[in-house]
Amino acid sequence: MNTHNLTLLVIIAEALLKDRLIHSIRDAGAKGFTITEAAGEGSRQRRVGELLGDNIKIEVIVNREIAERILVVLQQDYFPHFAVIAYLSEVQVVREEKYV
Amino acid sequence: MNTHNLTLLVIIAEALLKDRLIHSIRDAGAKGFTITEAAGEGSRQRRVGELLGDNIKIEVIVNREIAERILVVLQQDYFPHFAVIAYLSEVQVVREEKYV
Amino acid sequence: MNTHNLTLLVIIAEALLKDRLIHSIRDAGAKGFTITEAAGEGSRQRRVGELLGDNIKIEVIVNREIAERILVVLQQDYFPHFAVIAYLSEVQVVREEKYV
Repeated sequence: MNTHNLTLLVIIAEALLKDRLIHSIRDAGAKGFTITEAAGEGSRQRRVGELLGDNIKIEVIVNREIAERILVVLQQDYFPHFAVIAYLSEVQVVREEKYV
Repeated sequence: MNTHNLTLLVIIAEALLKDRLIHSIRDAGAKGFTITEAAGEGSRQRRVGELLGDNIKIEVIVNREIAERILVVLQQDYFPHFAVIAYLSEVQVVREEKYV
Repeated sequence: MNTHNLTLLVIIAEALLKDRLIHSIRDAGAKGFTITEAAGEGSRQRRVGELLGDNIKIEVIVNREIAERILVVLQQDYFPHFAVIAYLSEVQVVREEKYV
């Protein structure tokens, strides 16, 4: 099976930011995304999402360039104002053309 | 802590495919799986799952051989007909015998 | 973009263990976590969570040392008694100070 290395970007944020984040992600060049409901607590020790659905987890598979572009937007427009978590990992996909 | 490298296979698909996908996964030799509800948009720009629960995310931890076997089945029986996403990544587990 | 390598620890368990697991995770030094509802079947072939919400998936980003500390607790206090899955993978974060 022929697979291709791409980057999985995971963003966890307040559910209220959903539409705004989707717009930022699309704008940076991502072709698709997956959203799940989440709850959690962050490093500020206050609850960033006590109930399931207070937070969302957005997963995007992109190339490294688009992932970094999204991180720059997060750093400029989201991190200073909101409790947002973002991390990258390496994944292997088939049908690379679906993502980049 | 002694850990073992295995492969995490993530499949995102329409919720309607759940039973069929579980059967394919079991059939290929996976011992277990985890399912979460998801929503998302795909590369065709049409919404593949507007509401949470329209899509499911199935996670399977297997060895590389079983992961590739599942990918072959996805490529033959699912990709031509359905909006299915699949990707692999490397994970480390304890208690390897639970998975393979 | 300057990123730092950290460890993503994923734990899947019965929802009833939620508070106890959160306590164990905090106790080991994790600063935050994310929870999603899940369902699944395990290697014992019995259903460990037939309905969505029967299981939870807890995700924690920590350094390797804290991840291993949590694994030791799981191995001592959880694995012998409960159907618990745990795996590690490598992720890259910005703002490392949020996690360790």
